[in-house]
Amino acid sequence: MNIAEYLEQQRLDVDQFLDLIAPTAVTPPTTLHESLRYSLLAGGKRIRPILAIAAAEAIGAAAPGLMPVACSLEFIHTYSLIHDDLPSMDNDDFRRGKPTNHKVYGEAMAILAGDALLTMAFDIISRPDLMKGCDPVRQVRLVQELAYGSGNRGMVGGQVFDIQAENKNIDLDTLQTIHKHKTGMLIRAAVRMGAVAAGATERQLDDLTGYAEDIGLAFQIADDVLNVTGTREELGKNPNTDAERGKKTYPTFHGVEGAKKLADDCVSRAINRLSSFGPSADPLREIARYITARKN
Amino acid sequence: MNIAEYLEQQRLDVDQFLDLIAPTAVTPPTTLHESLRYSLLAGGKRIRPILAIAAAEAIGAAAPGLMPVACSLEFIHTYSLIHDDLPSMDNDDFRRGKPTNHKVYGEAMAILAGDALLTMAFDIISRPDLMKGCDPVRQVRLVQELAYGSGNRGMVGGQVFDIQAENKNIDLDTLQTIHKHKTGMLIRAAVRMGAVAAGATERQLDDLTGYAEDIGLAFQIADDVLNVTGTREELGKNPNTDAERGKKTYPTFHGVEGAKKLADDCVSRAINRLSSFGPSADPLREIARYITARKN
Repeated sequence: MNIAEYLEQQRLDVDQFLDLIAPTAVTPPTTLHESLRYSLLAGGKRIRPILAIAAAEAIGAAAPGLMPVACSLEFIHTYSLIHDDLPSMDNDDFRRGKPTNHKVYGEAMAILAGDALLTMAFDIISRPDLMKGCDPVRQVRLVQELAYGSGNRGMVGGQVFDIQAENKNIDLDTLQTIHKHKTGMLIRAAVRMGAVAAGATERQLDDLTGYAEDIGLAFQIADDVLNVTGTREELGKNPNTDAERGKKTYPTFHGVEGAKKLADDCVSRAINRLSSFGPSADPLREIARYITARKN
Repeated sequence: MNIAEYLEQQRLDVDQFLDLIAPTAVTPPTTLHESLRYSLLAGGKRIRPILAIAAAEAIGAAAPGLMPVACSLEFIHTYSLIHDDLPSMDNDDFRRGKPTNHKVYGEAMAILAGDALLTMAFDIISRPDLMKGCDPVRQVRLVQELAYGSGNRGMVGGQVFDIQAENKNIDLDTLQTIHKHKTGMLIRAAVRMGAVAAGATERQLDDLTGYAEDIGLAFQIADDVLNVTGTREELGKNPNTDAERGKKTYPTFHGVEGAKKLADDCVSRAINRLSSFGPSADPLREIARYITARKN
């Protein structure tokens, strides 16, 4: 399979559906809706929705409501970016080459846009029109997976660990705890939610959870490596920002080559987790390989 | 029935359950959990959970998971208070006589505590251990009710309308739109969720929705009146703060006596909506009366 083509096609489908379900900017409160659309539809790789879709494909059974389920993850991811960029958090003025949400709409609206996106993620996966045909038992489980992965024991918890580590001489264990929660838990939720939507068995879910944890780690290590080795053109931003900020990363602990090797090991482990799956899991296998091969 | 005793007993039960399900401050991330417990367990009338419980009582059937469902509303209410108090929003330093969350834990932690509480509301009502015995079809509907009432078309939308009305010469229609969303929609969700948990018929749900909308309005008008007529001792804060801030309220448009009359009319209407219910709806009737009789 051609993974670049696969990712591009899925990305287009996800973008189209996000545009469809996000409230229009002419529906009141108009500024809120304009603000949340600004961030939600600002591009991005849509890796979490695509992972959910690929996990459902791996199971190979019908998964009613898969697209809303996949997109709910992007609502959560987008809210987390808006709140992380706030002046009291990372205080970032630009994201993906565009001014951050609070720079355009002000802090109050950015906080509320984040709150609205977070709430809408749960709205989407519980709406009868969007989730038609989905077994209610699965649906409740999807809500639980999303809440668990994005809350205090997941993504929000990771953001707290990250803030508390700022300007501190953290060890490798702490670095891993931060990433496991901040990025890992939502990637884990993405894969599990796709699998649950398609009616995975517990055994399949275990294998896919292992896969998700491995690629989550690979993804973060590869990001850290790219920050050192990428060019300005590839990254769309200056390289080496981590080192300049004195931020501890995987290359800090293992060197660039050591970190690359670690990421490759994670990818191999992730692919091995899929040994009981046939060709239906090829998209998941290729996504794992893509993580360390990508240039941005 | 003695409504004061009823409210006090329910409040104690709700407080106890909130304490039980909120993560302990020794579980990492400890500061996050300390921060969210600080606001969640800071007292309060717990009117939303109590309305959910009283609505389930009115239906009179078993409602498995009623207490978590009721408490999820308080998680949402608490998150909204924390975010509303932030410097970029209302910039309040005190709430219920205690420093606001961000004054104690800083802005970043306050934003994250709010995000965590919001997410946990959905966690609670989808957790298999807490919701044991609840029909999954009802459970999905509860998620939908909570998301709808608290999101862009509900409470968050109301907060946006409120912010946009600041320092503007708003008319009565705008005032009503603000309150209908900012406080009304979560009160509506509370009553509906209690009813759904107990398996209300659509007809019962319609009647209770009407009741909820009427008391939501009565509640807000009574609050506005108390701000003018209450003493410092009764309110626990200075009276007349609305007028000093140039804020338009129901007394601005109708005068104090006119506003009181309007609130009484809402209460009568709310009680009339319950005409098809027997004595099981007495708590709801008494709560409606209490709204205009209370002193704080």
